Amino acid sequence: MSEQNVLEMSQAELLELSAELEEQYLEFKNRGVKLDMSRGRPSAAQLDIAQGAAEGVENYIGINKFDYRNYGILDGIPEMKQYFAELLGLAPEEIIVGGNASLNLMYDSMTRLLLKGTAGNKPWKDLAEVKFLCPCPGYDRHFAICEHLGIKMINIPMTSTGPDMDMVEKLVAEDASIKGMWCVPLYSNPEGICYSDETVDRLAAMKCAAPDFRIFWDNAYGVHHLYDEETQLKNILEACRNAGNPDRVLYFFSTSKITFPGAGVSMVAASENNRKEILKTMGIQTIGYDKMNQVRTLNFLKDAANTKLHMKKLADSLREKFDIVLTTLERNFAGTGFATWHTPRGGYFVALDTMPGCAKETIRLAADAGVKLTEAGATFPYHNDPNDSNIRIAPSFPPCSELREAMYLLCICIKLTAVRKLLMK
Amino acid sequence: MSEQNVLEMSQAELLELSAELEEQYLEFKNRGVKLDMSRGRPSAAQLDIAQGAAEGVENYIGINKFDYRNYGILDGIPEMKQYFAELLGLAPEEIIVGGNASLNLMYDSMTRLLLKGTAGNKPWKDLAEVKFLCPCPGYDRHFAICEHLGIKMINIPMTSTGPDMDMVEKLVAEDASIKGMWCVPLYSNPEGICYSDETVDRLAAMKCAAPDFRIFWDNAYGVHHLYDEETQLKNILEACRNAGNPDRVLYFFSTSKITFPGAGVSMVAASENNRKEILKTMGIQTIGYDKMNQVRTLNFLKDAANTKLHMKKLADSLREKFDIVLTTLERNFAGTGFATWHTPRGGYFVALDTMPGCAKETIRLAADAGVKLTEAGATFPYHNDPNDSNIRIAPSFPPCSELREAMYLLCICIKLTAVRKLLMK
Repeated sequence: MSEQNVLEMSQAELLELSAELEEQYLEFKNRGVKLDMSRGRPSAAQLDIAQGAAEGVENYIGINKFDYRNYGILDGIPEMKQYFAELLGLAPEEIIVGGNASLNLMYDSMTRLLLKGTAGNKPWKDLAEVKFLCPCPGYDRHFAICEHLGIKMINIPMTSTGPDMDMVEKLVAEDASIKGMWCVPLYSNPEGICYSDETVDRLAAMKCAAPDFRIFWDNAYGVHHLYDEETQLKNILEACRNAGNPDRVLYFFSTSKITFPGAGVSMVAASENNRKEILKTMGIQTIGYDKMNQVRTLNFLKDAANTKLHMKKLADSLREKFDIVLTTLERNFAGTGFATWHTPRGGYFVALDTMPGCAKETIRLAADAGVKLTEAGATFPYHNDPNDSNIRIAPSFPPCSELREAMYLLCICIKLTAVRKLLMK
Repeated sequence: MSEQNVLEMSQAELLELSAELEEQYLEFKNRGVKLDMSRGRPSAAQLDIAQGAAEGVENYIGINKFDYRNYGILDGIPEMKQYFAELLGLAPEEIIVGGNASLNLMYDSMTRLLLKGTAGNKPWKDLAEVKFLCPCPGYDRHFAICEHLGIKMINIPMTSTGPDMDMVEKLVAEDASIKGMWCVPLYSNPEGICYSDETVDRLAAMKCAAPDFRIFWDNAYGVHHLYDEETQLKNILEACRNAGNPDRVLYFFSTSKITFPGAGVSMVAASENNRKEILKTMGIQTIGYDKMNQVRTLNFLKDAANTKLHMKKLADSLREKFDIVLTTLERNFAGTGFATWHTPRGGYFVALDTMPGCAKETIRLAADAGVKLTEAGATFPYHNDPNDSNIRIAPSFPPCSELREAMYLLCICIKLTAVRKLLMK
């Protein structure tokens, strides 16, 4: 592959490269490959590592002498709170254990704020407009919640240390209709960016025009390190307390990508005021979450130390896939101008940026040749990537052989789209 | 015990009875008994019968070749839909499988109707007033949902064949702000009343001023027969279709009182239009419910025939307790004027009515003597029993010996409260 920058190529060089790429593309397409890389699903091999989490539960009596098969204990069994607290450096009493999906806790928090409001302020449904800050590229399902519920989203660019905090601080200070913000603070989806201590402190301390401004802190990849060197995330609950804004943050986490997606255990940690409000609504919404699954999950994960060992096994199986993606990108694109990307140290994704205006067409070309990638625009509010350049690569699901094929095609499609575009100028 | 009607007693007879009761009450109180009969919890013995539902899951590949450990399948695994369909006489395609609690599906339906509306009508949050019909006595948690979300509740008296349908038909025809109705159609909580076919047909066919009127059909005790003779419930989804109102009803059910409370599997059945709306919001709210628990529950319950055998075992263990309650009531109150009650053929409760104005004081006296019963008023909207007479007895949890003690005390308290009241006149 050429390492010449595509933007410096002559018309003749572009034509030559184009012919070469068209041929490679057709050759791949004719092979009739069918691959789906659209979602960040664990592979069967990863799930096998967690198979112990499907074992039977024989001891259902808790440390509190409670029969966990029966009704009761709305906020989660004490063993599970202790586990989450140790794993994440939180206090057990800060934690409310939820059902199988932290996304559900987030959605329920949003509908609660809409219907009931918080801290004596007007329910958000009664306001003319509610806005959320959306660092992007970000997680499509966060943005889908806002879109579904009519909450206006404002794009916030990401930097290497988290969201652009100058912009965030300016906006929240000026506009009282900005009621909250989405954050995936560690190994962000999709770029793998980690919020610096300074970012956490600024989020905790910034002056907000809205007294009921809430950060939805989705620490989805809080223990999903790919390498021995683990990025540390500052405790935002503590930072908010220290800054005099104890009620600012709702901290979400789950074991979905530790044990089984959809059969794990979720949690939300928050201040006492927030917990009271959450539990009041939760006590109306449900008779309580699945305590037997809390026991089952704990029987397998045991404690923080054992979970770290388990996560190392998962990382061993994931790392090879990230290496395939990153070395392919490096080999194809370093110094070429075709694409830029982040090199994540954890999480589930690699995000790259094509030349502006090329993402949609690249994804379309790949799909036509049999490889389904995450829809272009999915990582932005309203599915609208203003530069049409971001592509999310989800390497976890396919076996390595398929991943290599998919990456091979993706690189061809990125280059072909760019070259065609340059030739049309 | 006297079988003389208390209302026909002379002052002297009342005084004599009063002295006798005061003595019995004090004697019980001095024994320092502590019993909690406030909620309809299964006993440990009942949960032991379902212990197989806690076993490990080894085969996680579905009939659709899907790995149920992974993400995907929002509406439930096909095996579970088939199971519910067979058990309840519904069609598999009518069913959406939920999480561990059908109450959660009900709450989520209500917030969806508030925030998004249905069938192109205004979201309920944008209306000046939303009202729900509440047959009562009824289930406190239904009423709590309405109260929490600001939905005005209208009491509907119960008859021996279900809610007073003359009143229901009149109200829904006149008032477009009446948007729905709660129903527990089989072995109602707390009276154990079963809706007749005529009641089902009238609910399905009645003319509603609100085009988006919705019946929340909570068939919580759909397979909870106490005796061999099983009361049949007419299929309301079919009745609504036949009456030209296919979208009128949301049908809820769960295995919470079949396997484990809080660790079962819930479902909602509805028309295609309703299912589309439910799934659209559900797909925003969650990545999907716990499919592994669906597999686990099915491994134990297997099919409708096996579930019926299992329910017979549960009934065998429950029936003795219902017999204790009913024979105690009969022995103490038949022909006395102190109390009336229903004789349920299934479900989880026995409800009785004291003389008007006596329920609160009866419950207070019982609590003072060490027996906690369901709070007086709990079975009515806003915790307000207009006659202050309804008491819900939940016999399932305590062992028979404790239940006998509790019933002994309850009868004393009912009589003592009534006699004191009559003496004050």
